[in-house]
Amino acid sequence: MALFLTFEGLDGSGKSTHLKSAVAWFAERGLPHFVTHEPGGTPLAQAIRAVFLDRQWGEMDGTVELLLVFASRRQHLIEKIEPALREGTHVLCDRFTDSTLAYQGCGRGVPRSTIDRVDAIATGGRRPDVTLLFDLPAEQARARGQSKSRRRTGAVDRLDAESLAFYERVREGYLALAREEPGRFRVIDSSGDLDATTQALRATLATLLPAKQEAAR
Amino acid sequence: MALFLTFEGLDGSGKSTHLKSAVAWFAERGLPHFVTHEPGGTPLAQAIRAVFLDRQWGEMDGTVELLLVFASRRQHLIEKIEPALREGTHVLCDRFTDSTLAYQGCGRGVPRSTIDRVDAIATGGRRPDVTLLFDLPAEQARARGQSKSRRRTGAVDRLDAESLAFYERVREGYLALAREEPGRFRVIDSSGDLDATTQALRATLATLLPAKQEAAR
Repeated sequence: MALFLTFEGLDGSGKSTHLKSAVAWFAERGLPHFVTHEPGGTPLAQAIRAVFLDRQWGEMDGTVELLLVFASRRQHLIEKIEPALREGTHVLCDRFTDSTLAYQGCGRGVPRSTIDRVDAIATGGRRPDVTLLFDLPAEQARARGQSKSRRRTGAVDRLDAESLAFYERVREGYLALAREEPGRFRVIDSSGDLDATTQALRATLATLLPAKQEAAR
Repeated sequence: MALFLTFEGLDGSGKSTHLKSAVAWFAERGLPHFVTHEPGGTPLAQAIRAVFLDRQWGEMDGTVELLLVFASRRQHLIEKIEPALREGTHVLCDRFTDSTLAYQGCGRGVPRSTIDRVDAIATGGRRPDVTLLFDLPAEQARARGQSKSRRRTGAVDRLDAESLAFYERVREGYLALAREEPGRFRVIDSSGDLDATTQALRATLATLLPAKQEAAR
């Protein structure tokens, strides 16, 4: 059966790099896979994302943002993710609902019950089969994120300029989610060098997709 | 106390013309008033509206549309409507949640419970103080709507091309809402000529805003 696999972690956790390593792992084994990301993933979702990233609106109300995030997520789910899974294609998705729970919920203080209510309407509380959480200390993630942002734009953007306390709340939020659902989460230590994390990632993928499926290719 | 007054009815009910008459009535009496409309009403809401009217997405999922409509409505409510009311300004709004209940709910069959759940999150179930429902037979509204659309664009647009059965479901939906909340709704017969409806509208407004408030100007 095809896996719905998500990649989660703080900005600066190297998540997107690790997603590329995972894609290589699937490709080496000839496993059919589809790579996508949130927010976005569909033209409609990209258009919604453009609306709420536009600075001209100033500070957006948290609940308005939540409704837009989940409208976009539902479209992504029904237009891309579910059809791929039905065809037997593994789905590798950069961020999903856990990001909303960690960032908007724990980071910005939007009540969990509000997120859960919108999620129930939009996705029926749909969760990935497996979530890889790339974990590292908040301070380290923040330093990496800011350094990356400076290289890209010459300035620290709004999110990267968040306080260390914010990064810590988000990290703790992720770890709490992993404790809530130990069967779904795999926490991968990302505080070391890239090679160490890549090795841990490949070992985790090997436990998720059994040899018989590899043999069947 | 400032009134939150909405204008509802089928496309082709002459609602927008009647809103202009109501604005004239408020202006004649020197009553502070703010005129707005849904969908839209704020730059953000207009941008969201543009996203979901764009034909390139094809058929949009009903729940995605609902999440976008209510994201837009919440922004309109907290950015424009509530601040005006707090300042003592009457708000005259072309369409609000009753349109969603009548069109998406009764017209397109989105379950009432789904709409109510999104509404509870987005607006806390906020309703106008008074809703003027411009009522006329579905066939008459449809004929007027199509004639107006042809003059404007040379073609019948998607909504105006809806079947008569759709118009009838929406009309019945509106009348059912009026029966549910007789204290909030004023049903104004719009099947006659414009002068007759305007007279009925002005008489209704006179009952809503007492003479003492007029005297106080």
